[in-house]
Amino acid sequence: MTLNERAQLLADEAERNAARLRVHVAKVAGARVIDCGGAVTGSLAAGLLMARVCLGEAGEVEYVPCPIPELGGPAVQVTTDDPVRACLASQYAGWQVKVGKFYANGSGPMRALSAREEIFQHIAGKEEAPFAVGVLETDRHPTDEVVASIVAKLPLVAEHLTLLVAPTQSLAGTTQIVARSVETALHKLHELQFDVNQIVSGYGVAPLPPTTPDFVQAMGRTNDAILYGAKVTLWVRADDEVLERMGPKVPSSSSKDHGKPFADVFTHYKGDFYQIDPLLFSPAEVEFRNLKTGRCHRFGGVEPGLLRRSFGLGE
Amino acid sequence: MTLNERAQLLADEAERNAARLRVHVAKVAGARVIDCGGAVTGSLAAGLLMARVCLGEAGEVEYVPCPIPELGGPAVQVTTDDPVRACLASQYAGWQVKVGKFYANGSGPMRALSAREEIFQHIAGKEEAPFAVGVLETDRHPTDEVVASIVAKLPLVAEHLTLLVAPTQSLAGTTQIVARSVETALHKLHELQFDVNQIVSGYGVAPLPPTTPDFVQAMGRTNDAILYGAKVTLWVRADDEVLERMGPKVPSSSSKDHGKPFADVFTHYKGDFYQIDPLLFSPAEVEFRNLKTGRCHRFGGVEPGLLRRSFGLGE
Amino acid sequence: MTLNERAQLLADEAERNAARLRVHVAKVAGARVIDCGGAVTGSLAAGLLMARVCLGEAGEVEYVPCPIPELGGPAVQVTTDDPVRACLASQYAGWQVKVGKFYANGSGPMRALSAREEIFQHIAGKEEAPFAVGVLETDRHPTDEVVASIVAKLPLVAEHLTLLVAPTQSLAGTTQIVARSVETALHKLHELQFDVNQIVSGYGVAPLPPTTPDFVQAMGRTNDAILYGAKVTLWVRADDEVLERMGPKVPSSSSKDHGKPFADVFTHYKGDFYQIDPLLFSPAEVEFRNLKTGRCHRFGGVEPGLLRRSFGLGE
Repeated sequence: MTLNERAQLLADEAERNAARLRVHVAKVAGARVIDCGGAVTGSLAAGLLMARVCLGEAGEVEYVPCPIPELGGPAVQVTTDDPVRACLASQYAGWQVKVGKFYANGSGPMRALSAREEIFQHIAGKEEAPFAVGVLETDRHPTDEVVASIVAKLPLVAEHLTLLVAPTQSLAGTTQIVARSVETALHKLHELQFDVNQIVSGYGVAPLPPTTPDFVQAMGRTNDAILYGAKVTLWVRADDEVLERMGPKVPSSSSKDHGKPFADVFTHYKGDFYQIDPLLFSPAEVEFRNLKTGRCHRFGGVEPGLLRRSFGLGE
Repeated sequence: MTLNERAQLLADEAERNAARLRVHVAKVAGARVIDCGGAVTGSLAAGLLMARVCLGEAGEVEYVPCPIPELGGPAVQVTTDDPVRACLASQYAGWQVKVGKFYANGSGPMRALSAREEIFQHIAGKEEAPFAVGVLETDRHPTDEVVASIVAKLPLVAEHLTLLVAPTQSLAGTTQIVARSVETALHKLHELQFDVNQIVSGYGVAPLPPTTPDFVQAMGRTNDAILYGAKVTLWVRADDEVLERMGPKVPSSSSKDHGKPFADVFTHYKGDFYQIDPLLFSPAEVEFRNLKTGRCHRFGGVEPGLLRRSFGLGE
Repeated sequence: MTLNERAQLLADEAERNAARLRVHVAKVAGARVIDCGGAVTGSLAAGLLMARVCLGEAGEVEYVPCPIPELGGPAVQVTTDDPVRACLASQYAGWQVKVGKFYANGSGPMRALSAREEIFQHIAGKEEAPFAVGVLETDRHPTDEVVASIVAKLPLVAEHLTLLVAPTQSLAGTTQIVARSVETALHKLHELQFDVNQIVSGYGVAPLPPTTPDFVQAMGRTNDAILYGAKVTLWVRADDEVLERMGPKVPSSSSKDHGKPFADVFTHYKGDFYQIDPLLFSPAEVEFRNLKTGRCHRFGGVEPGLLRRSFGLGE
């Protein structure tokens, strides 16, 4: 089954359990749009479901006790044996949906169906499927024009498209972002020109930050959960020299913008996202386990104090 | 589906897997009675199932590694997006079943069907359902009279009632009690006249204490697991001033009886349960995450040393 | 349902999801052989599935955050309410399969169907079933002769036998070994002549070590994960005097060979496995919870520093 078909089954499940998940299903220009946290409250369970949709169900997502004892709340655990397809061809928010004033980070298996992004020239994952399922991180409800602009890049009609939508500031949105621990490691490695096809499996845990209605704070906390709180393990088949050389550049600590809460970095650059050092976007800690040699390489480390400040828990 | 119908499906599952769960199913005055730990040994799995029944399956319950490193054994993790219904209308042991010498703490979705308790005047959750499912914490097997007294308060016949029964001193009983971390936070808040309808979702973890045949010790340890070991996170839509003012009263540390193992408190009051400060019954640590403002308020803290003494692990 | 029938359903699931699990299904002399990590990469998910097969699904196996903060990666959590059957009659690798140069540690429910090992004279668990399912830890693919030698000890034809195969050095092999935390505690207790039928339920967690292609290192790390990293809790009905007397002999610290990475011990004895003190093979920490008396007895402790060295993480 394709990632889109698996995600379609999850979306059907969301529709059947809409009341319980506190999501709302509507038709927009023929497409099914499932609001998971914009005009509705959404839920912790809807966040897990969105995260599974993002991965095209090629991975598991669960709430687990937070392994950073200084923090409260659960953490979000991700396990995948298909990391390139699950994380890069699907979960990575590489589809910017801009239509007039509407803006959303687009992710999910619909990306693998469209496969127009440059990254698909380097990774496998392009697929053909009778349905498309996407996830939009945005605080606006998609309009007819937004749906049409997405469908225009897909080989199917709007009636076969499902979009799950939630803002950064929502309960479900927080979970689906924090479920990106392994994804951010893979994307950073791809940026560093590491051959991500060498990555066999991935495991990650990141703390679930307190949801907040302020967009900058929400963006700050969800980023901090990854940058300063995520621990990722990657099983790879690679050269140890490459891992030793590249490894220190993988965790967020390799960035010149590392060390401050993300909201402060964002403010420092006057809200110009593209001024932020792209090397910042990666987990706090990454461990490579080389199946070729048995060697283990660990880089970076979590920052409980910074997380406490970011999450509003004091020093 | 109502909480009672979902619980009915779980009870059917228990009946089908009776041997595996080490539970025993019998008919008492027409009702189905599932002994999960009185005359039978029961199991860890039966404990999870009882806990899920208590919540009317409006929440998840799992064994996870204990986040308090000084303790052995698993902890019990609860997640719910329907905390008022799951915890207060169903899981809270608000139905005292007294018939002659028989006494049991009654909980589970049958409470929402009966809805005679005063608390149902303050919360939603009353429901109509074709089945009733309840949980009795007691070391006696319910008699015909006990069943009749329960049915008398329900709008259905005994043939549509299922009771899951386990003593405090049993394996399954221990789990179903310790799965009450979120519930005790909600109940305490309700007692403090906080509007619990402002609570959107809940997450809690509490250590599973060693099961013991002595009733006072069993009551002591299960209470200690909550009072000194439970960490709860509540997502709320509330005023920060109210949370700041009320928050310090929420964890068990707010009580004058806090600080001693529960069994000692009980003995101190010569076994008169009603002399114990009702403010004691709440988790060790409660964190509020205010969806309205993004602010985070944490109160209380776990007491590993006290738990070690209570659980018989030495200092 | 018998353990073999439950395992058969899991094996059918593995066959249906072969691509996703990265396993390969073949027929060898009529038997179904599922390669989970020899000529194929296998997966973390295949490891869980093998572990569940080993237990005849009379227990749960999950990846959870590692409770030893000095280590990366997940840990493997096991819960069982049928510990003697699940762990000793099925999961214990008591069937040495030797045919010419072929050698494998055989485990899984086929042992309970064959029931020729001496241990079946002391424990319940022998069963009759229409299928047999076994797990082979070996780096060679079983031949026709290997299958024939196994079938010769089973009351059925090769067509009704399934073998899941993975080397110690594989991803799935690592998980299925580390899922033996409770089993090693039970086996050690059996060796110490403790009546294992007194063990009611079991819970264990052990860190998942980095997979390595070197056999001795792989054997070393998986053993170290148990010997120095596994924490096990056993609910028993026993005499406290027996537990107090026998307890200190249960964790690996009771062995004269304790304290060094297992690969060093193996090398010290020049690779002669049978020179190693058999008392070494047990978890780092074992806690007994006596249902008869409520007393709790804990012995041993984990060794994070040794595990870091063994796993190649430095001091």
